Amino acid sequence: MRAVIPYKKENAKSRLSPVLTLGEREEFVELMLKDVINTLSKSGVDKIDILTTSIYGVVDDIETNVIVSELGLNEVLNKYLTKISEPVMIIMADLPLVTTRHVREITTSDKDVTIVPGKGGGTNILYIKDPARFHVKYYGSSFRTHCDIAKEMSQSVYVYDSFLASTDIDEPQDIVELLLHGHGMSKDYAKQKFGIEVSEGRIKLSHAV
Amino acid sequence: MRAVIPYKKENAKSRLSPVLTLGEREEFVELMLKDVINTLSKSGVDKIDILTTSIYGVVDDIETNVIVSELGLNEVLNKYLTKISEPVMIIMADLPLVTTRHVREITTSDKDVTIVPGKGGGTNILYIKDPARFHVKYYGSSFRTHCDIAKEMSQSVYVYDSFLASTDIDEPQDIVELLLHGHGMSKDYAKQKFGIEVSEGRIKLSHAV
Repeated sequence: MRAVIPYKKENAKSRLSPVLTLGEREEFVELMLKDVINTLSKSGVDKIDILTTSIYGVVDDIETNVIVSELGLNEVLNKYLTKISEPVMIIMADLPLVTTRHVREITTSDKDVTIVPGKGGGTNILYIKDPARFHVKYYGSSFRTHCDIAKEMSQSVYVYDSFLASTDIDEPQDIVELLLHGHGMSKDYAKQKFGIEVSEGRIKLSHAV
Repeated sequence: MRAVIPYKKENAKSRLSPVLTLGEREEFVELMLKDVINTLSKSGVDKIDILTTSIYGVVDDIETNVIVSELGLNEVLNKYLTKISEPVMIIMADLPLVTTRHVREITTSDKDVTIVPGKGGGTNILYIKDPARFHVKYYGSSFRTHCDIAKEMSQSVYVYDSFLASTDIDEPQDIVELLLHGHGMSKDYAKQKFGIEVSEGRIKLSHAV
């Protein structure tokens, strides 16, 4: 099985800057990437490509294929899709809550395209059985866009409903979910840095004491 | 099958006050309640109790049993649990994204207690097979608390992983998910009131023009 992970370490996750320094953010995104790679490997995904704009900071202690390109996310992914001829999972690097169960359920769907929505209209995971019959368009309301593209291309769609897989770690509040429901190295890192603050409403992030 | 829905219309959902007036919020919570009741009914739940602190604003055009009590949420629910002797689902009224599939999957689990976490550490749905062997403690980090209570009472736990069922409508950003992924009367209401604003990051709510 094949998966591709778009990845950017340099100045990543600026929306986490209220709670993590630049150096910490770069460390954190690398751990999230490693968690995603581990989950894929344990799920039997044996071909993992990392798409990145710069070789800077790409982890070298794991067996993956690194593709460096200065193209934008959509351009590089669509070029990639034209070059492969087998089912592929496009999975974002900021999804440390994804488990082997999710990967198994997503890759065994009988639909042509499986879409895992992210919070706020994004697309966290796409599983495309025939890359020649799909193209991506990330940013903005990409969940709706990807549903539309599938329809245009006469591809059947499965919308995979998972709280964990829908939780991309973008904002401080997302780290709360990682602390509550997560596993792996990025969770351990977050535990070192943060605690959680219980009040009447939703739990908030606090700095570890 | 039996379900109980804690419900409060009076001055409900204050965190939606930046985008909805008091009157609109009260209208909106009533529609969400109706959506939840419809989903339960369609799923074969034939005994639905509504727990409320005041008869004010409890919908009268639906066949449910209304229990009025001035006790706090935990007190009234724990009293309720002592009085019934069959499996029961405690489901919040602000979950219009819940579908019949969720209800079916939750009620057919072979575990003693099923917990659907909400965002930020909350508990959106609890399905309790033996009410004599569980008690609730909402507010704060209730997801963790409910897992702990199940453990203390030697009840096995199934954590149900669903983006839709985890999305309680509490804050303006949650309405974005209702617009993107919802169904039913509360979605129609939100569509009348709001649009969505597409930018680089997650989609934001905007007022309808």
